[in-house]
Amino acid sequence: MVKLANRHLVSIDDLSNGEIEALFSLADEMSDSMGRQSDLCRGKIMASLFFEPSTRTKLSFEAGMLRLGGSVISAADIGASSLAKGESIADMAKVVGSYADIIVIRHPWEGAARVVAQYAGIPVINAGDGSHEHPTQTLCDLYTIRKKRQTIRGLRIALWGDLKRGRTVHSLIYALARFGATILLCPGPGLELPEHVLSRLSTDYRGELKRCRDLNQALETGPFAVDAIYRTPSSPHQLAMLPDISMRVELNAGVDALYVTRIQKERQTHTTKEKDLNRAYPVVDKKLLRGKGFKKTLVMHPLPRVDELACEVDADPRSMYFKQAAYGVPVRMALIALMLGAREISVSGDNDHFTTKPVYHVYERDPGIKCPNTDCVSNQETEIRYIKPKFKIVSRMPLTLRCIYCDHELHPQYVASSEWHQGKVANKKYHSANSRFARSIRPENLIVFASEGEAQAQQFKPSSNVRQ
Amino acid sequence: MVKLANRHLVSIDDLSNGEIEALFSLADEMSDSMGRQSDLCRGKIMASLFFEPSTRTKLSFEAGMLRLGGSVISAADIGASSLAKGESIADMAKVVGSYADIIVIRHPWEGAARVVAQYAGIPVINAGDGSHEHPTQTLCDLYTIRKKRQTIRGLRIALWGDLKRGRTVHSLIYALARFGATILLCPGPGLELPEHVLSRLSTDYRGELKRCRDLNQALETGPFAVDAIYRTPSSPHQLAMLPDISMRVELNAGVDALYVTRIQKERQTHTTKEKDLNRAYPVVDKKLLRGKGFKKTLVMHPLPRVDELACEVDADPRSMYFKQAAYGVPVRMALIALMLGAREISVSGDNDHFTTKPVYHVYERDPGIKCPNTDCVSNQETEIRYIKPKFKIVSRMPLTLRCIYCDHELHPQYVASSEWHQGKVANKKYHSANSRFARSIRPENLIVFASEGEAQAQQFKPSSNVRQ
Amino acid sequence: MVKLANRHLVSIDDLSNGEIEALFSLADEMSDSMGRQSDLCRGKIMASLFFEPSTRTKLSFEAGMLRLGGSVISAADIGASSLAKGESIADMAKVVGSYADIIVIRHPWEGAARVVAQYAGIPVINAGDGSHEHPTQTLCDLYTIRKKRQTIRGLRIALWGDLKRGRTVHSLIYALARFGATILLCPGPGLELPEHVLSRLSTDYRGELKRCRDLNQALETGPFAVDAIYRTPSSPHQLAMLPDISMRVELNAGVDALYVTRIQKERQTHTTKEKDLNRAYPVVDKKLLRGKGFKKTLVMHPLPRVDELACEVDADPRSMYFKQAAYGVPVRMALIALMLGAREISVSGDNDHFTTKPVYHVYERDPGIKCPNTDCVSNQETEIRYIKPKFKIVSRMPLTLRCIYCDHELHPQYVASSEWHQGKVANKKYHSANSRFARSIRPENLIVFASEGEAQAQQFKPSSNVRQ
Repeated sequence: MVKLANRHLVSIDDLSNGEIEALFSLADEMSDSMGRQSDLCRGKIMASLFFEPSTRTKLSFEAGMLRLGGSVISAADIGASSLAKGESIADMAKVVGSYADIIVIRHPWEGAARVVAQYAGIPVINAGDGSHEHPTQTLCDLYTIRKKRQTIRGLRIALWGDLKRGRTVHSLIYALARFGATILLCPGPGLELPEHVLSRLSTDYRGELKRCRDLNQALETGPFAVDAIYRTPSSPHQLAMLPDISMRVELNAGVDALYVTRIQKERQTHTTKEKDLNRAYPVVDKKLLRGKGFKKTLVMHPLPRVDELACEVDADPRSMYFKQAAYGVPVRMALIALMLGAREISVSGDNDHFTTKPVYHVYERDPGIKCPNTDCVSNQETEIRYIKPKFKIVSRMPLTLRCIYCDHELHPQYVASSEWHQGKVANKKYHSANSRFARSIRPENLIVFASEGEAQAQQFKPSSNVRQ
Repeated sequence: MVKLANRHLVSIDDLSNGEIEALFSLADEMSDSMGRQSDLCRGKIMASLFFEPSTRTKLSFEAGMLRLGGSVISAADIGASSLAKGESIADMAKVVGSYADIIVIRHPWEGAARVVAQYAGIPVINAGDGSHEHPTQTLCDLYTIRKKRQTIRGLRIALWGDLKRGRTVHSLIYALARFGATILLCPGPGLELPEHVLSRLSTDYRGELKRCRDLNQALETGPFAVDAIYRTPSSPHQLAMLPDISMRVELNAGVDALYVTRIQKERQTHTTKEKDLNRAYPVVDKKLLRGKGFKKTLVMHPLPRVDELACEVDADPRSMYFKQAAYGVPVRMALIALMLGAREISVSGDNDHFTTKPVYHVYERDPGIKCPNTDCVSNQETEIRYIKPKFKIVSRMPLTLRCIYCDHELHPQYVASSEWHQGKVANKKYHSANSRFARSIRPENLIVFASEGEAQAQQFKPSSNVRQ
Repeated sequence: MVKLANRHLVSIDDLSNGEIEALFSLADEMSDSMGRQSDLCRGKIMASLFFEPSTRTKLSFEAGMLRLGGSVISAADIGASSLAKGESIADMAKVVGSYADIIVIRHPWEGAARVVAQYAGIPVINAGDGSHEHPTQTLCDLYTIRKKRQTIRGLRIALWGDLKRGRTVHSLIYALARFGATILLCPGPGLELPEHVLSRLSTDYRGELKRCRDLNQALETGPFAVDAIYRTPSSPHQLAMLPDISMRVELNAGVDALYVTRIQKERQTHTTKEKDLNRAYPVVDKKLLRGKGFKKTLVMHPLPRVDELACEVDADPRSMYFKQAAYGVPVRMALIALMLGAREISVSGDNDHFTTKPVYHVYERDPGIKCPNTDCVSNQETEIRYIKPKFKIVSRMPLTLRCIYCDHELHPQYVASSEWHQGKVANKKYHSANSRFARSIRPENLIVFASEGEAQAQQFKPSSNVRQ
């Protein structure tokens, strides 16, 4: 019996596989009783804080809360109010946390929901933070696949379109990896999955990623261009073994679900180059779906769509996107009820690959280094007053630090140890991060520098392994 | 016993006279129990979707739903959200239709509410679609008149101001015609009722319209300038007989209600000419109401007002406009309760002129013709992906097609028949729409061309009656 | 037993001290039962009308109403709707008054809430009107102080920051005066309390105000610069006696509460001079609070804050600002329940200094004079159609008229009497407002002129005391 009460959902990784499956059982129950007014959350208030425009996510959260008998306070124009006055989101979180019982937040800054969760004092749900994550959309996506295919394990799921800026895709890909799917990545040109997402697939979920530029050309001339394939290991701790030959088998076996996404124009920099790319962006239509690999393919889309998915597909029994949207209410009802402690769920642990979630040392030394992502909450003028940059040390070779707010990674070139045995300044040396010495520094003693200049500013001198 | 459950209210013509009167009985009941919290719509959710700013309509719908024990999800800034992402309103309708139990929508495109009704899967109420219709305002207007005068039949009602762009006026005029009122049209200069509205008065309600330019000059020098008079026939199927002499009688008999409207500045093109017209726009004030025709006149206004109706009239017992607004809550409560199936109403058919509603053949042939109204939903970039233009053939002489979305009319000049007996291309001829041959084509065989060029592009050749 | 039902809260002076204390008892009760859903206001609707952006005030009012079992209709984007159409706020008030049971309004015009109260026909709460007042914030402030210090009487409270445009400061200062606090005014440079607020402290609350420019220089070199000190008289009708020597005692005795405010950038005219002043604006941080006068000081702030109050203070037990915000819900719950008549309170009169509230003659003669405040509701284009400027005559020497809407004061230089005994035009004379004759005119006969030109335009001639 695991309770979700007083926890947060900022990343899809905040829920274990078992918890997600238990949540889905409760969503089934919510679905069945949709016609009757529930009193499960009577007396509870949800604060719906949308710093970015939203129709479906906001309305489905609010509809869910109301159907549970709770009520909603909302601040849809919030971007124009406190923010304009220069308030930090931490202050906003503390105040709203004293008014409401649960917060749902959408914000353009990556990591914003994590900050709100740290300060609100009540459960917080991330309804989208910049290009980072959108975990409740992923719950709806997984629920839809499960309804149709019973399991996600072993399915071949193709992600199509804007994999670069689509936060729904980022949350989904982590979940698919954890549930054991094989993922075919089919980005539009220039819209490939960000490196930090690819990297996390290997470091955290231990699957194997094959890039198509390593494969033969034939793969790229199929029904749609595959950029990379990710295969989950069949058991935890074991790297997936994915020889080239089996990849062709994967592709020939057809696609279980095709997850189409919209070009995120609102996050786009308007260069001529990108406009050209838009024209090259492929359209999913009847013709494409007549391909032999798509016979039983679930056609999915987080919506809203523009031109990338033709209306003529709507009537096709394979089209799932309006179901995905409709499931938004029962899935979010289940989530809200659990996080408010109005219901508890029994979790069976045996299906939970993610119980092997890696534990990383957190780097938070002063004077700190900065997250390289300019959209990260830790780099915003109103937030740097109180946010201390923090990073997980996810790899030592090459040295890789992952921002705890936005998951972007950085690779510092120079390090030192806080243990200089005689305590003499003369012993303060910095080392190349790739050197044998650097790798031997224990995580708790590690000092990281953004540049040699910074190392020297802190009175460190280069060791012999620097610039070798 | 007629149920309104699972129906839509897009045009005032979606309700019969009998249904409107039964709804008013229920509104009386709602009015009487306003102080007590109702549970009639407990567990039901209204989606309040306002793509245009609104205070009173939005708030009165939401207050009505809350007083019925239901709840509300709203997207007042919706113009800034999905639309900005390029989503079609059909998609939006399908998704919101899966969250809520009833939709109230205001949208700047004419016909938008009809599209939402087609796709939502739940009852839809039009809260104003561009300059097209605003049927719930009309219900409040009729309810106000009925409260004061018991019947609408035979009343002389003057419509004053912006008859061109005022959607409230368009819905009202249809209802007044159906309930048997005599309508005096008093537009501001350049703000005359659109031709398609005038045309519908004749084709659908079979009354007689007299333009004042056909009457003698004296009529225009009365208390306010009458542009035209419409008289409903005393029984269905009978054209109203309205000799000039009786028009003077009508005017001398006084006005039962004066319906004042605001210049719709937000829909105005800012030409110097229109600015001049604004200055000529007459003001309804105490002085005007001292005129002998106005002794018992109900002074009405859909609000908001600007300068066209002086504040000094507010205290006058003839002023009805704040009552109209206040009736918005009980009238909308009755409507919502009926459309959600929470109540049923018994309809007596004997008062229902509109049971004789004409049935027109629908033209929807490919490649289609386009609606001439640039504000019509069928002409919008995001909507043409799936909307097929459709037209009612409301007259053959002259050939008149009415857009099923926005009611604008077009008069194609060239037609053909889909029956060319020998099936030879040589027999594909197009005809002048006014020719004897054209009129003999059966509606189901009719092919309509926007131009001769289009006819020829479809491989038709001119028949002998073309350009005669 | 005093009822608040069907009254308004526009100025903090609309509640007596006794009523405020009784309200606080009810707030304690609300606080204790916060976890349970109340049904006290079931069936009641609050209209939440925010013509200016707001997060915390709007959300806390709405949360309060929902926790009482009532419901909310809100128009957060209302500035973009009716106002854009040119509607007056009086019309808006009448209409919304017919939909809801109580109105909460925030508006950029000073005095707007008073106008809404006059026209709505239901109780109205001012949630901030321009730079004028924000009485419910003051209730939260007082409640916070009372919770910590039991009484306000005799406390030394320093107001720090933007005292010029901060409406929360204006309401607070009146309340502190009435409850018998000593107020230390510490404005940022150029952000001094407006003259009309200082004037009201003397005329209405009869305390004594000492400006520091009258004191010796030493006072200004303390932990923070004191601009003026206000001391409430120890009993009503008695002027406070505040010799210079005791002021030093006041300062040395420490500060009981330090009320920090944000620079109201959104109300600021962007002159280079003001930008310079911003840089000089002092920051409240740990260092400042180590000063000996601050040992037991409650650090308060109405929030949102920007840089004027350092985050490092948050963890300090003296910091009260998040408590102030959190008390917003129970305090507003108590207020709403009282104003809706859902609860009554018993008021003990003995603590009520303000029962001695002065009664002033109201000047409302036509043709009127205008309020000198351009942000006053009585000067707005849409409102002058119906608003008649009105002024309280608060002093005859010098002649001082206070606008009943925004409390700004004017000092007309020329006056006349409406009593000219022979009724001859020749006797229509105007006088210098400072003349002996002018002071002898009875208030009901007083005629006031904005200028000599206006007096002459009304056919008055200068008397011998003019231009003496």
